[in-house]
Amino acid sequence: MKVDGISRRPIEVASDGATVVIIDQTRLPHEFVTVNLTTMAEAAHAIRAMLVRGAPLIGATAAYGMALAMREDASDSGLASAIDTLRQTRPTAVNLFWALERMRAALHNHAPAARAAIAWAKAAEIAEEDVAINSAIGDHGLALIEAAVAARPAGSGPLNILTHCNAGWLATVDWGTALSPIYKAHDAGIDVHVWVDETRPRNQGASLTAWELGAHGVPATVVVDNAGGHLMQHGMVDLCITGTDRTTRTGDVCNKIGTYLKALAAHDNGIPFHVALPGPTIDWTVRDGVREIPIEERGGDEVGRITGRLDDGRIAAIDVLSPGARAANPAFDVTPARLVTGLITERGLCPATEAGLTSLYPEKDGPGSGERRACIRRKTGLYPEKDGPGSGESRGSNT
Amino acid sequence: MKVDGISRRPIEVASDGATVVIIDQTRLPHEFVTVNLTTMAEAAHAIRAMLVRGAPLIGATAAYGMALAMREDASDSGLASAIDTLRQTRPTAVNLFWALERMRAALHNHAPAARAAIAWAKAAEIAEEDVAINSAIGDHGLALIEAAVAARPAGSGPLNILTHCNAGWLATVDWGTALSPIYKAHDAGIDVHVWVDETRPRNQGASLTAWELGAHGVPATVVVDNAGGHLMQHGMVDLCITGTDRTTRTGDVCNKIGTYLKALAAHDNGIPFHVALPGPTIDWTVRDGVREIPIEERGGDEVGRITGRLDDGRIAAIDVLSPGARAANPAFDVTPARLVTGLITERGLCPATEAGLTSLYPEKDGPGSGERRACIRRKTGLYPEKDGPGSGESRGSNT
Repeated sequence: MKVDGISRRPIEVASDGATVVIIDQTRLPHEFVTVNLTTMAEAAHAIRAMLVRGAPLIGATAAYGMALAMREDASDSGLASAIDTLRQTRPTAVNLFWALERMRAALHNHAPAARAAIAWAKAAEIAEEDVAINSAIGDHGLALIEAAVAARPAGSGPLNILTHCNAGWLATVDWGTALSPIYKAHDAGIDVHVWVDETRPRNQGASLTAWELGAHGVPATVVVDNAGGHLMQHGMVDLCITGTDRTTRTGDVCNKIGTYLKALAAHDNGIPFHVALPGPTIDWTVRDGVREIPIEERGGDEVGRITGRLDDGRIAAIDVLSPGARAANPAFDVTPARLVTGLITERGLCPATEAGLTSLYPEKDGPGSGERRACIRRKTGLYPEKDGPGSGESRGSNT
Repeated sequence: MKVDGISRRPIEVASDGATVVIIDQTRLPHEFVTVNLTTMAEAAHAIRAMLVRGAPLIGATAAYGMALAMREDASDSGLASAIDTLRQTRPTAVNLFWALERMRAALHNHAPAARAAIAWAKAAEIAEEDVAINSAIGDHGLALIEAAVAARPAGSGPLNILTHCNAGWLATVDWGTALSPIYKAHDAGIDVHVWVDETRPRNQGASLTAWELGAHGVPATVVVDNAGGHLMQHGMVDLCITGTDRTTRTGDVCNKIGTYLKALAAHDNGIPFHVALPGPTIDWTVRDGVREIPIEERGGDEVGRITGRLDDGRIAAIDVLSPGARAANPAFDVTPARLVTGLITERGLCPATEAGLTSLYPEKDGPGSGERRACIRRKTGLYPEKDGPGSGESRGSNT
């Protein structure tokens, strides 16, 4: 997508062909700063310090980190050490492990002298696959938007779409997931306007979604997370589209905390609520999202401490709670499939049901298909019923 | 209620009997600072600069402002001038006008020499009436809490109550409305725990509700506004109680933005959702809250700018949006009566229906009863259907 009219991606090979350029997302929305990654250690730092975030982008950055590593030390021990370093940057990011495993599989049977070239090609392949998936999601979602526009009287003004959190190009290699249909619609000349939930506590909507839509020229307005229900009651939202961290085989959606509340309001007001997802994020082992997906409980400091720009331009953090106040911080919630109008995947649209999903992914049909997703368990104390062994946990890979 | 074990009110006559002590609520939750009001001008400033806020407390402060004024100049022109000054402090606060009118009615037929003593007595009467109303709300709400505790198995742990915004003692002369039953329950030895919505954009929950509950010793945990639905899905909320700015004769509730989303989640999870209100805030002229109550659209700067405590202890404001980002800020929403389990008034409990309300307020029964509430209209552009003449607008009197 574009920034000030120039096409950008959050990760790109530099013009020298030997290093990688990323956008430092910790500086957004206050400053647009790019960083040149010249070593594997710099790539690892970029993931660890969250200069890059969003599951697909973390995966791509790890892949390019391996490419940088193969220039530094392409020996077997260099390969093992680079994988080890990169996988420890975000110990719960599924896409990270997946990308590193693909890089290892592509490299380990080749002679060290051949590895660098193979690694750069494989990293580019991983990145372009993500772009293709997201672009396909956008094309299918565009059809929904076109249908919504066609169903309204002429002269109805912009189509108002509400989104939650950031599932945009900044979280992927390009296009995003939930925002991909919106970019496609805007680029096709359709008059769209986006209501952007600020998405407390980490403010990904206010910081990232509003910034990236604005940078590309898509009209957008930030609202507090409390506002969406009121907007829907008053006919000011035509359509909701969000992303998802994890989707069950029955169509339940685990996404950023607060998504469920917006789905309830959309349902109460007869407004379509769509969820965009790449097929690989479907967890075919889970049937009941509310009961089976434990939710990560993050630190209360994320609730009480907010970062922004002081009047003198410096970036600072402030505390909004009194020192003695307690805060709890569940990071995700589960929207039951009954509240989800439809799913937008790279293979097309489907209802949020097992039949809908297996119609698009027939290879997953049947009990016991799919692997149980690797995950880290953490006992939170808040969900004792979920603290049994083997239950998966949704963690901040999309953050 | 108590602060560090000492009984406090947000407004009290000082021990000198001639001045008034308030809590500077703009400093909360970071500092507990009291201010001595010695003149009418100081009382006017306290209202204007929001050192005091909350409809009942604004009314009481205006009444005491008149008492201070009558010591300075009790002539007819002094009386008129004081009323004029005080009514301009918050031009949309209904309780302010109501309190000033009561003071005027009590004073204008008396000789100037008698006015100061009458004014102090009348201001105390207005304050004590508010305390009595809120205490009665608390007693009736306590019965609900006792019933909820009795319905659970022994050893279920604390009763978890979720609230939104601040409808506590800081917004009134004592007890609060929504929090009054909670204080009564805590003081009666019932094990209660309160989930406090932070209540963006002005953070009244994080700043005020969490502080006042903590100061009195009631266990409380702040959550972002996004979290309540998830907590309810997982059995972590037993009961919701909020306040209301304005209640229709049919039981629709206009309250701080986001209340509707919590009511939807409570309904979806079979959790009781109660609203506490003093009878005088019922608007008997309105039947359909969603269609008839236009909602104040406040400045987007409240969304993008947040105040808190820097690490060096200074209080500062930060901007969280990029300079070019747009924000919208509807300040209230309407929760339809169908989502409200019951209303808690000073006269008892009733269903959120016209029959329920008129059973408690039979003097209001019949069409056309009640006066149309004075209000200021503001065209927002967002609600063209509401911009007809004579429609009332809900404004930040509870803020």
